[in-house]
Amino acid sequence: MIYLDYAATTPVRDEVVQTIQEALIESFGNPSSTYRIGKSTKYLLTQARKSLANLLNVSEHDIFFTSGATESNNWAIRSQAELARKLGKGNHIIVSAIEHPSVMETLVFLEQEGFEITYIHPNSDGEVTAAAFVKATKDQTIGWIAMAVNNEVGSILPVFELGELAREKSLWFHVDAVQALGHLDWDYSELACTSFVGSGHKFYAPKGIGFMVYQPWDKQMKLTPLIFGGGQEANKRSGTENVPYVLGMVRALELLAEEKNSILEHHNDLQNYLYDQLNQHQIAFERNGNPKAKVPYIHNIWLKDLMASQLLILMDLAGIYISAGSACSAGSLTDSKILKAYYPETPERWSQSIRLSFGKESTKADIDKFIIQIKKFIERK
Amino acid sequence: MIYLDYAATTPVRDEVVQTIQEALIESFGNPSSTYRIGKSTKYLLTQARKSLANLLNVSEHDIFFTSGATESNNWAIRSQAELARKLGKGNHIIVSAIEHPSVMETLVFLEQEGFEITYIHPNSDGEVTAAAFVKATKDQTIGWIAMAVNNEVGSILPVFELGELAREKSLWFHVDAVQALGHLDWDYSELACTSFVGSGHKFYAPKGIGFMVYQPWDKQMKLTPLIFGGGQEANKRSGTENVPYVLGMVRALELLAEEKNSILEHHNDLQNYLYDQLNQHQIAFERNGNPKAKVPYIHNIWLKDLMASQLLILMDLAGIYISAGSACSAGSLTDSKILKAYYPETPERWSQSIRLSFGKESTKADIDKFIIQIKKFIERK
Ligand SMILES: Cc1ncc(COP(=O)(O)O)c(C=O)c1O
Ligand SMILES: Cc1ncc(COP(=O)(O)O)c(C=O)c1O
Repeated sequence: MIYLDYAATTPVRDEVVQTIQEALIESFGNPSSTYRIGKSTKYLLTQARKSLANLLNVSEHDIFFTSGATESNNWAIRSQAELARKLGKGNHIIVSAIEHPSVMETLVFLEQEGFEITYIHPNSDGEVTAAAFVKATKDQTIGWIAMAVNNEVGSILPVFELGELAREKSLWFHVDAVQALGHLDWDYSELACTSFVGSGHKFYAPKGIGFMVYQPWDKQMKLTPLIFGGGQEANKRSGTENVPYVLGMVRALELLAEEKNSILEHHNDLQNYLYDQLNQHQIAFERNGNPKAKVPYIHNIWLKDLMASQLLILMDLAGIYISAGSACSAGSLTDSKILKAYYPETPERWSQSIRLSFGKESTKADIDKFIIQIKKFIERK
Repeated sequence: MIYLDYAATTPVRDEVVQTIQEALIESFGNPSSTYRIGKSTKYLLTQARKSLANLLNVSEHDIFFTSGATESNNWAIRSQAELARKLGKGNHIIVSAIEHPSVMETLVFLEQEGFEITYIHPNSDGEVTAAAFVKATKDQTIGWIAMAVNNEVGSILPVFELGELAREKSLWFHVDAVQALGHLDWDYSELACTSFVGSGHKFYAPKGIGFMVYQPWDKQMKLTPLIFGGGQEANKRSGTENVPYVLGMVRALELLAEEKNSILEHHNDLQNYLYDQLNQHQIAFERNGNPKAKVPYIHNIWLKDLMASQLLILMDLAGIYISAGSACSAGSLTDSKILKAYYPETPERWSQSIRLSFGKESTKADIDKFIIQIKKFIERK
């Protein structure tokens, strides 16, 4: 198996499976129970929260565990949008046009509820600029939203710059950091934002666990629960806590913290090798997204005149797993909304592009095999 | 360790740990991916949904996996309440006064949003009656809510009767079946309700996984997502699916389906033994809740003149884990709202009562040790 789709999901690493299994067996007490085996589970949860706070360089009191980044994005955006409007601040939100569906669909819902949304498209250089956010801002604007790294093309958005500007303007600023966390050497204490989110299964922990960091600069902007009940997570996110997965997720980030730089180097190597090989084999391609600001582990490539959907079937038969567009848009292959936002004038590009994404186990041999299949596909035509 | 708090949470059984571990390692593909290792994960999810549908005797298309019963309760209630109001049906909801916080706090939220809520208290016989629901129903009434089994006292509510009446009156009817599922020999196809929910960790699967069954009798009453995004779970509950836990949860219910009757018999034995022993040792007690309709695995006992909080500490030191009230109300011990609803006139009873709940591994020897500690506690006084 040659897996080149780490941006869709990662395998759960052995150490994390081990952590989860131990917790499933040994730490079954309900963290809310007042007796020892409840308290000891609660203690593990508290320790995990502290470790995560350390790794991210944020306050442990600002961390809320959730069922994943989809829930986190929904929650962070709805809580801030709805409260800001209630406080009379306005009803206008500005967002990059290349966000994940969990952000986009939340905004579609808010639009139905009377919010006004402005989408900032990438410019002709493939950049989503802070200047465009500033320009679109008006009296009624309450918040900005931008992802750290786009999941389909790997573009890095100017979230640090956006954050400083949002803070100056007293706007809430939400960052979907799912594709950055654990992979880029960022200090999140330097990221000025009111909320950001992560998801375990993008960094070698399981699907179904994630978190939100909430740190408003306006004390009036209290977090409103999306899920009410027994009062877990400081009364903000009820539901009996999934302690094994929380421990697994934090363990995964701890391990990556040690290896991040060497993995990043490895990804840079692979990136160079990929493009060298494509050139050497004279495969006609163009890179999608913003080539100047991108991560080395996500690659979106326009293979001119090749139908991505057909190529993907051939790859699948050869045991090579890559994708076109995003895997989160459940099931069948439709044209990528992200590529549409980048290249509104070039429809061929939407259906002739594929995504490769690397993980820590990826190798040059994987890339070689991928290249062989592309060449086969071209020859067959 | 003597664990007598299965209603708070259950240990994860070995077979379920095994199922989860295998899936964590082998089935890491994203169910939304179009290639083989994505599709095979999706297949497992589909099969699990089918098995669950079989076990519950409901349609697989009506099952939605969630992060637990707290999310499920929030979702089912908000979707139905908000849509019914939008459709002009009214804004009045009737609910038993002894529901779990995940139901109660959702209703507090809806009250703030302009809904009117009527709470049906247990009568002097400890019964929450269908007649009381009917009596409270008026023109503006849109829905009824009742739990199957109360988690603190073990009372069985007349949900089958309520369901028939709700259907006649075209009201939506939501059932929190958390403390019944897997333990009682019910055929859920006979339970007339528009929605019901369950949670894995109450039947030997982990915390952080649950489901909702949604089967409206009015086709206009479409389910509205609480969490928007990539369109998983038939576009109703987005977020990358936690396949290992789903498989574990369904496996747990499958195993219980085979053992349910013998476990129920075992629980009946233990129940008789418990009350025999309390009597034989001349411990002054009264049973809380509805003695005529209750499950044999949850017991709430008023130990006259004994402070429950102190007794719990003694038990804890002796390695015996029981609770007072509900563990879901995070952290410290406060007087039980459920006992307040049952016994508004007897405040002593709120602080002098304890809950014991049995599981499949519970033994008479556990009860003996529990009795010894109570006697010690009485002697010390
Ligand atoms: C009756 C009842 N409903 C709902 C819940 C909440 O379920 P979960 O722990 O999955 O959030 C519980 C227990 O926690 C319960 O006992
Ligand atoms: C950028 C981005 N945001 C959000 C999500 C959703 O996270 P989850 O899968 O935890 O629901 C994903 C991936 O699925 C993603 O790539």
